[in-house]
Amino acid sequence: MDLNAKTLPPMPLTMEGSWVLHQMIRFDWAAWRGVPTDVAETMVANFAAMFDKMGSDKSALFSLVGHKGDFMAVHFRLRLDDLNDAEVAVTKSALGDFMEVVHSYVSVVELGLYESSVKLYQAMLERGVEPHSEDWNKEIADTLERQRAAMSTRLFPDIPPARYICFYPMDRRRGEHKNWYMLPIQERQRQMHEHGMVGRRYAGEVRQIITGSTGFDNWEWGVTLFAEEPLVFKKLIYEMRFDEVSAMYAEFGEFFTGIRRQTSELAALLAIAE
Amino acid sequence: MDLNAKTLPPMPLTMEGSWVLHQMIRFDWAAWRGVPTDVAETMVANFAAMFDKMGSDKSALFSLVGHKGDFMAVHFRLRLDDLNDAEVAVTKSALGDFMEVVHSYVSVVELGLYESSVKLYQAMLERGVEPHSEDWNKEIADTLERQRAAMSTRLFPDIPPARYICFYPMDRRRGEHKNWYMLPIQERQRQMHEHGMVGRRYAGEVRQIITGSTGFDNWEWGVTLFAEEPLVFKKLIYEMRFDEVSAMYAEFGEFFTGIRRQTSELAALLAIAE
Amino acid sequence: MDLNAKTLPPMPLTMEGSWVLHQMIRFDWAAWRGVPTDVAETMVANFAAMFDKMGSDKSALFSLVGHKGDFMAVHFRLRLDDLNDAEVAVTKSALGDFMEVVHSYVSVVELGLYESSVKLYQAMLERGVEPHSEDWNKEIADTLERQRAAMSTRLFPDIPPARYICFYPMDRRRGEHKNWYMLPIQERQRQMHEHGMVGRRYAGEVRQIITGSTGFDNWEWGVTLFAEEPLVFKKLIYEMRFDEVSAMYAEFGEFFTGIRRQTSELAALLAIAE
Amino acid sequence: MDLNAKTLPPMPLTMEGSWVLHQMIRFDWAAWRGVPTDVAETMVANFAAMFDKMGSDKSALFSLVGHKGDFMAVHFRLRLDDLNDAEVAVTKSALGDFMEVVHSYVSVVELGLYESSVKLYQAMLERGVEPHSEDWNKEIADTLERQRAAMSTRLFPDIPPARYICFYPMDRRRGEHKNWYMLPIQERQRQMHEHGMVGRRYAGEVRQIITGSTGFDNWEWGVTLFAEEPLVFKKLIYEMRFDEVSAMYAEFGEFFTGIRRQTSELAALLAIAE
Amino acid sequence: MDLNAKTLPPMPLTMEGSWVLHQMIRFDWAAWRGVPTDVAETMVANFAAMFDKMGSDKSALFSLVGHKGDFMAVHFRLRLDDLNDAEVAVTKSALGDFMEVVHSYVSVVELGLYESSVKLYQAMLERGVEPHSEDWNKEIADTLERQRAAMSTRLFPDIPPARYICFYPMDRRRGEHKNWYMLPIQERQRQMHEHGMVGRRYAGEVRQIITGSTGFDNWEWGVTLFAEEPLVFKKLIYEMRFDEVSAMYAEFGEFFTGIRRQTSELAALLAIAE
Repeated sequence: MDLNAKTLPPMPLTMEGSWVLHQMIRFDWAAWRGVPTDVAETMVANFAAMFDKMGSDKSALFSLVGHKGDFMAVHFRLRLDDLNDAEVAVTKSALGDFMEVVHSYVSVVELGLYESSVKLYQAMLERGVEPHSEDWNKEIADTLERQRAAMSTRLFPDIPPARYICFYPMDRRRGEHKNWYMLPIQERQRQMHEHGMVGRRYAGEVRQIITGSTGFDNWEWGVTLFAEEPLVFKKLIYEMRFDEVSAMYAEFGEFFTGIRRQTSELAALLAIAE
Repeated sequence: MDLNAKTLPPMPLTMEGSWVLHQMIRFDWAAWRGVPTDVAETMVANFAAMFDKMGSDKSALFSLVGHKGDFMAVHFRLRLDDLNDAEVAVTKSALGDFMEVVHSYVSVVELGLYESSVKLYQAMLERGVEPHSEDWNKEIADTLERQRAAMSTRLFPDIPPARYICFYPMDRRRGEHKNWYMLPIQERQRQMHEHGMVGRRYAGEVRQIITGSTGFDNWEWGVTLFAEEPLVFKKLIYEMRFDEVSAMYAEFGEFFTGIRRQTSELAALLAIAE
Repeated sequence: MDLNAKTLPPMPLTMEGSWVLHQMIRFDWAAWRGVPTDVAETMVANFAAMFDKMGSDKSALFSLVGHKGDFMAVHFRLRLDDLNDAEVAVTKSALGDFMEVVHSYVSVVELGLYESSVKLYQAMLERGVEPHSEDWNKEIADTLERQRAAMSTRLFPDIPPARYICFYPMDRRRGEHKNWYMLPIQERQRQMHEHGMVGRRYAGEVRQIITGSTGFDNWEWGVTLFAEEPLVFKKLIYEMRFDEVSAMYAEFGEFFTGIRRQTSELAALLAIAE
Repeated sequence: MDLNAKTLPPMPLTMEGSWVLHQMIRFDWAAWRGVPTDVAETMVANFAAMFDKMGSDKSALFSLVGHKGDFMAVHFRLRLDDLNDAEVAVTKSALGDFMEVVHSYVSVVELGLYESSVKLYQAMLERGVEPHSEDWNKEIADTLERQRAAMSTRLFPDIPPARYICFYPMDRRRGEHKNWYMLPIQERQRQMHEHGMVGRRYAGEVRQIITGSTGFDNWEWGVTLFAEEPLVFKKLIYEMRFDEVSAMYAEFGEFFTGIRRQTSELAALLAIAE
Repeated sequence: MDLNAKTLPPMPLTMEGSWVLHQMIRFDWAAWRGVPTDVAETMVANFAAMFDKMGSDKSALFSLVGHKGDFMAVHFRLRLDDLNDAEVAVTKSALGDFMEVVHSYVSVVELGLYESSVKLYQAMLERGVEPHSEDWNKEIADTLERQRAAMSTRLFPDIPPARYICFYPMDRRRGEHKNWYMLPIQERQRQMHEHGMVGRRYAGEVRQIITGSTGFDNWEWGVTLFAEEPLVFKKLIYEMRFDEVSAMYAEFGEFFTGIRRQTSELAALLAIAE
């Protein structure tokens, strides 16, 4: 029995965890200046209280550097509906009247299982299990269930407490000549593996959370990096750009750079000196 | 008589049904906060009554997740004029003064008949019917009329009551080297058939409504998916992305993700806690 | 004497007629609600009177479907200056204060003469007339003058009274590999001829007005279609998309779909029920 | 001594003259309506006086046709700082409060010297002058000085008094396969020469001013055409589009079409009939 | 031992210095006109004092020519957090209420070390040091530390006091056929070296500061040029565009052109004559 590359199903298995919303927020400083101090203080206190109630491991606030926004709020939630609740809470708050959400990103934590997909597909094909048959699907479901249990902390992570954040969305190229989705799964697995090797060298310095957004937002994936030192974002992304999978098959959206803020800092951040 | 691929007319037959309008709506929460409670309640009640009168199977309301809008209204109608009536009703309502329609999509339910087109074209050519002759046109009209009757519920569907919605527009690529519209109809039919096979595996979980918009809006097709569980949107679209017809010939616009809201929920959705 | 394809001048002759302005207009309903009824009625009446004075065959009003605008005004005029007068009349009107022209298109009715250009160029070359010589230019001027007289109703058409309108701008592709402007004129003439054959099949259902905008606006041509049934726009454009000239060499801008409105309907269209 | 194409320095010599600013201006008619007549008249008179003082040969006003702006102001100046002074004068004027500069273009009159560059480079190479040596640079400086004197009226032109203006920015293509900047200078010179031959046929009807903007604005060149009859813009640009240098190597930005206005017409242009 | 091109790690070493923020600012002249003179004077004085306190070598103000902004503020800082402090200081100032930051760019001074990277990598490979091993990393760290000390004034430069500024962001092309990131490091080093040779000819006239922004903003690099004569920006960038590395592998964003302003000029710049 000849099992060449082409006979493996092309889609790698994935596991999904927390739903994630990035909100880029512009603050209306001119209008804010007109708010009486005591009213402003109450608005800030209420907003901070609301945010604290969400939990700093599930909703975090960052100052964005540059004109793309004054703040970025990041929310990790169990259900898509919870993301909508979080954005509505921001929107409906009194402080929210001074906030314009100028950009956002909807995605879900995704662990791509290229390695185990290729192994499992090959093993099943060798045993003569027909793709997409009941047996095939059951074996996949069992595998995913086992892995989901083992990786639950990676699937449902807390927001890392690191001071700096970097966010960008990306696609895999579907060019007329270079087309990621036309490559055999084994070739994609090889390239992703090499890519992961580079990432591993930065493991101590950068925490990377990959989220999938195919069907939810305009790009296929979101990449959110956390670090205690912002230069490492550049080092990591620049080094990865030479990987074949990035050099040839990556297309990037906008990049957002933020600095972690605690809700206890909010009053000072929004205070306008006379 | 040699009937090679090239001799078949290139355009597949299609049948059209309901006209469809997607409206992405941003709500002006800051202005809304200033409206006296009783006035606001009347506005909401009137809007809900207007929407109810349209019928929940013909006009539905969703919360959009992310900054692309607070709400998405979807309208299915018998005539293009009715779509305009629906949008004007939203626009002219008192609540509409707080709604900015920031995006929209105009299309019409389309059933593509690749399989039967190829069969019919081949059969007619074998019988010597000349393309676009009176006989040719009559036979096509008869076929379409029969199919239209048989498929009327698919052509004029109710809006599925599912909780989650996913909408995106798309084109078929017309690249310098890879050009969908230059492929013989039989090759396109083969690729669409394989594509449909993948879709069929999700039939129980996702309801898919394809609408055509060539000539009406900026893309060639709209895809609207309905499901009770939003992750399945990602699974379906990701798996399909490996189909040749998507990997090579699909170009996508923006993706919109929404959660179904009943008009009875509207008052609570728009209520701003003091 | 060898007259191969390359020796013919590449530019086909064209004849120009009426100047055309498409105005896509967003209406400020929220501000409009605040206008006292009697003031509003006067504004509408004055606007309608101004539009009527322009003549319904020269300036027409449509409701746009979707968020690209509430209305589209289309003006056909003898001179470019007259187009500016028409837009200034709208802008300066009292009702114009509630209208934002969010998009527009400037072009001029164009009849492309591929067929007669090729014939004339070949004939003159055979007779040894040198391209761009005085004789050459005179013969072209004479030909154009004759044709202009014969085609004056097509060059200076009334706005067709049909209920539905479809407008989109387009370019001919100048790709690195597929480049319309590098093809010999005979090859372009052949492709345009085939294209015209498809259009001819829709002659009874769709009135098509081609306008040229090279040098006046962002695309090379505008296409304005008029019909009594909007589905035919999709049928025509979809069928044409398989023509080589469209499949390979057409690039399209935004599509606008409108429904004809009479000035007598304006009061009702703008009336806001209490 | 073998002097093949590749040995010539690739950059053609250029001479620069007047700095040029195009300002596309949207006028706030709704706000303007609220200004008392006498105040409005003073604002207009002051603006006209300011403009007159600049000199109609150095600053000119046009009505733009279409939504890209109500007016276009064009300024020719000796220094970049003078352009900034001109825009600040518009901005700070009382009438300027009703003007939003929605687009602009910064460039400098440029005469490209392909022909003499190739000749000069070849001559110097034949004489063994090393590129970019002191001798090389001196000889170039001398040549440019001589030409600058001879061409001073083309370098520092008055704004032509013609009634119609056409403006668009452009780039030379740097595609993966067709790349203007990778062609030998002799080949570029040949193509530019042919291009110039077409332009010459329109010399009596169109005045063309080429400005360079590499490093100053988003495109590499600006093209400003002046004529007494607007159709000739289309004829010229359409015919040129078939030149190899345009068909293959030109990329165009937005096109702006305007009608010359005198400051004495301004009061009438801005008058709003009751 | 065969050390061909492919065995060298692809990423060149870089050294980073000051963090840099470019802020493009639109000024609301209409609102400003309404501010009482004494209040305006205080606002301007406070803003100037705040800017002066930042230090003219670390924060500088320019008038932008054209509609992309009235002003550009450029900030050089030791830490990313300091950039955010600088932008917040502008935002929170009273004058800031009349300033809209319509564009910005976040980057960090970067010295690319192609030449020494290739040498060092080759030397280490010849000595059998394994890439990314502890020894490898230490040797690199030592090299960088030495160079950082030697080049500290280039890494942490003052803002040059020159009168004119030119800013633009850029990427290296990752095309389907021409892909900078797929070239061997030696080939990239060769092209960068030739590029540098051109730049060197302008050393006396233009001060160039390259900043890296991979991971921080939408492009990979920012280029900021300073000169006492603005025409030289065009000459330099135009000549460089013929370098292989620019002709084939450069993609450019928007270009911004500015004129240096002292804080002492601010009162006059913002004064509106009656």
